[in-house]
Amino acid sequence: MSDLSWKTSITKIGPNEVRLRGYRVDELMGQISFSQGIYLALMGDLPDDNVSKMIDAILVSSIDHGASPPSALAARTAASTGASLNGAVAAGLLSINRFHGGAIYDCMSILANGIERTVSSGTDMDDIAIQIVGEFKAEKKRIAGLGHRIHSADPRTLKLFSLSGKLDIANAGVNMIRALQSAVAANGKALPINVDGAIAAVLIDLEIPQELANAFFFMARVPGLVAQVYEEQTRERPMRRIHPTDHTYDGPSDRST
Amino acid sequence: MSDLSWKTSITKIGPNEVRLRGYRVDELMGQISFSQGIYLALMGDLPDDNVSKMIDAILVSSIDHGASPPSALAARTAASTGASLNGAVAAGLLSINRFHGGAIYDCMSILANGIERTVSSGTDMDDIAIQIVGEFKAEKKRIAGLGHRIHSADPRTLKLFSLSGKLDIANAGVNMIRALQSAVAANGKALPINVDGAIAAVLIDLEIPQELANAFFFMARVPGLVAQVYEEQTRERPMRRIHPTDHTYDGPSDRST
Amino acid sequence: MSDLSWKTSITKIGPNEVRLRGYRVDELMGQISFSQGIYLALMGDLPDDNVSKMIDAILVSSIDHGASPPSALAARTAASTGASLNGAVAAGLLSINRFHGGAIYDCMSILANGIERTVSSGTDMDDIAIQIVGEFKAEKKRIAGLGHRIHSADPRTLKLFSLSGKLDIANAGVNMIRALQSAVAANGKALPINVDGAIAAVLIDLEIPQELANAFFFMARVPGLVAQVYEEQTRERPMRRIHPTDHTYDGPSDRST
Amino acid sequence: MSDLSWKTSITKIGPNEVRLRGYRVDELMGQISFSQGIYLALMGDLPDDNVSKMIDAILVSSIDHGASPPSALAARTAASTGASLNGAVAAGLLSINRFHGGAIYDCMSILANGIERTVSSGTDMDDIAIQIVGEFKAEKKRIAGLGHRIHSADPRTLKLFSLSGKLDIANAGVNMIRALQSAVAANGKALPINVDGAIAAVLIDLEIPQELANAFFFMARVPGLVAQVYEEQTRERPMRRIHPTDHTYDGPSDRST
Repeated sequence: MSDLSWKTSITKIGPNEVRLRGYRVDELMGQISFSQGIYLALMGDLPDDNVSKMIDAILVSSIDHGASPPSALAARTAASTGASLNGAVAAGLLSINRFHGGAIYDCMSILANGIERTVSSGTDMDDIAIQIVGEFKAEKKRIAGLGHRIHSADPRTLKLFSLSGKLDIANAGVNMIRALQSAVAANGKALPINVDGAIAAVLIDLEIPQELANAFFFMARVPGLVAQVYEEQTRERPMRRIHPTDHTYDGPSDRST
Repeated sequence: MSDLSWKTSITKIGPNEVRLRGYRVDELMGQISFSQGIYLALMGDLPDDNVSKMIDAILVSSIDHGASPPSALAARTAASTGASLNGAVAAGLLSINRFHGGAIYDCMSILANGIERTVSSGTDMDDIAIQIVGEFKAEKKRIAGLGHRIHSADPRTLKLFSLSGKLDIANAGVNMIRALQSAVAANGKALPINVDGAIAAVLIDLEIPQELANAFFFMARVPGLVAQVYEEQTRERPMRRIHPTDHTYDGPSDRST
Repeated sequence: MSDLSWKTSITKIGPNEVRLRGYRVDELMGQISFSQGIYLALMGDLPDDNVSKMIDAILVSSIDHGASPPSALAARTAASTGASLNGAVAAGLLSINRFHGGAIYDCMSILANGIERTVSSGTDMDDIAIQIVGEFKAEKKRIAGLGHRIHSADPRTLKLFSLSGKLDIANAGVNMIRALQSAVAANGKALPINVDGAIAAVLIDLEIPQELANAFFFMARVPGLVAQVYEEQTRERPMRRIHPTDHTYDGPSDRST
Repeated sequence: MSDLSWKTSITKIGPNEVRLRGYRVDELMGQISFSQGIYLALMGDLPDDNVSKMIDAILVSSIDHGASPPSALAARTAASTGASLNGAVAAGLLSINRFHGGAIYDCMSILANGIERTVSSGTDMDDIAIQIVGEFKAEKKRIAGLGHRIHSADPRTLKLFSLSGKLDIANAGVNMIRALQSAVAANGKALPINVDGAIAAVLIDLEIPQELANAFFFMARVPGLVAQVYEEQTRERPMRRIHPTDHTYDGPSDRST
């Protein structure tokens, strides 16, 4: 043991044994889903069935959002110069920040603050929502999680909320963002809850630390970036000029499970 | 439409509709697992149940391997200087290359070559394996996928093979690597099939393109890197000297599902 | 022209003509140094001779600081897994943040604040320095730019200050950090001005925007990272365990120009 | 000393002393230019005056090439999402690969091969060039370093060659690429030597290892990327759609030193 000795509580490695948060990985394999493994790695314990389903839904919702998001464009741009798959995905990952994916984090701040004020003041949540909306209006700031440049009713939001209800997960987080949406609407502005806001609300109800908000987005998006990069590598010529919006879809026709 | 117009076959975005490979994402949410979503994004179609279970097992096997792998150390080193979560994970991702995770790709080359020679020559697979082992020996090259510096019988390999048998996925890939292991053993050298070799064999049997080999490793490892970075951020002081091996585990005790 | 049309004021490209901030690049080549070109690219105009010499001195001071800084370790760790040269350097660059290199930015904040208070209050700079040191002490915060874990009198600081005096660049920035050092010493704590603090002071006197502080460090360090990665690639075996401090120097003997 | 002890020959750090390749860094500051420091870090010795001037000219030639190169677009795309300066520059750096900047490396291979064949065969260099051009034609491969999509006579090439002549650096590298250009022209195709080819030729004559070719490009371009990112951060709104070519220059008017 040197004077640089340190401790970790994630994984224990021994000869012929790998234990993640105490569980033998080979025992987990075949028993748990990848989402459950992710939850175990991050939160330290296995999720119950309802939480597992919710985590799956969150991650599935964010795998890909087409070729226009900056993370897809940066990854394709790097790929186009001959980057390795991981190098190109890293360029995409470096493009997931405050203004792309980051609304989850910012919205969690607002929701946590609203919930805290509701609890500590004993006031009705709807009144707190009206106060918050007023405060943001006074400071001319937008409420993260509300509004979308393409979708007026984001289908992913509707599904996340319907699932979080059915799975008994919906709680103060979902209630708070709905109260905020209503307060904004009462001001004459009907804004949809976007997928970032919906994920923020559900992550609050799942008691996921806010510091991991961005990770829930980018863990989901990394496979999407792999798909974008792989398509770039196999379908396009190197060093092409990549137009950010002038692309059309020519994949499988509309279908249903 | 400008002269830079291009096409993509991954995701179609329209107002209030996001379709991944033809399926409405909100329909997929709640119905499919994250692994199935990953498979759909990369391969273009939904996997059947057995393939889904196999993909889950592969991804679960590789979520984390403790604090010593270079990807964990690079991510922690970046985090220790105050990097953002995605910046630190990107530093880790940039450390997943030929010599860390890359054995999957190299092993897939060897297996594909062996299978092709078996089929085209009509020779027995075991004889082809003996030939290949001879060729590698003559060139003093190691066979990727065999041998491990810690594990003499990697428990993750055993489980991957037992699952791939039960799920009716095991095929030429698994047979070929076993033939190679036997041929090496016949030369007096008992080497375990490591987890990279096992994943390579199963990816061959799942008909995953070799170009995605590295991605199957890093998509699984990104959540592990998030856990490593988050632990570094919450448990350690900035700018510490990070010893690559002198760390001990102090997480949950051994437990079973 | 599309509706996405935008403007840039850095470089103009035409057939057989490349102009950086208005100057033909081929005219600049052979006439100006790389440092002058960097200054031109960032600041929009060519520096005079004294400023050029100062920029050279700042950049030379930060090229490398051995194998222990996190940026060198992260870059070597990535290289050790088989990363490309730019991939490994990117991993290093991602490790230059608040706690490594970032003291320049933080120190510039303190110095700018001190100078502003001195000017606006008409008080003596030394009195303002005493106030600031008191405020930091009350909040138990360290003053960025003072103190070093290895050097008690950083030779690079001494040289930067002697040059900035000779070249007529030293001004409020250098005076302010010296006043802070004196105020700390008067409190019974003799701390050296470290190289980050010295660079911060000189950048203030050069009127470099604070937002570029980190860049002045990492533009200088990128070549050092290239040297570290190239040494790792040519001298070490892949996937070695890289000890953060247990290394010794075996390069050229001490020598003088 | 642990069993992980290792050696480095770049920088020696002691209390109040930092030595780069044997020289005290504080002695170098004020005496050498940044380019000379870069050469010292990479090559182990200080360059003479002519080599220093040549290195300056190479680095100045590549600082920036406008907003269209993939490295600039990837860096701006990351910046547009709120990336830190170093994170955005890292995304740009990850976009400097085989097809962007990489022609220097590929061209050095061709030149080194041609020179070696000239020397070993005792044949005239022009004849070897004709052979090589024939071989590339037969394999339908392009000769890296010849041709440009914008410039028919790259002004940077002309200046690099005129300087390398004046500074007594031009040698087999420059001769070989000129011989190749002539051989291509004799085939009826007048292609300019592009700046990558010119740099490749001069790096050969400077005896810079081919493995550092990409670094000479990206060390020069990092400051350009800083300028691009800083302009994006200070001039554009977040999350804009970045058109790869539809931008116009509005910086300083044409001017001369």
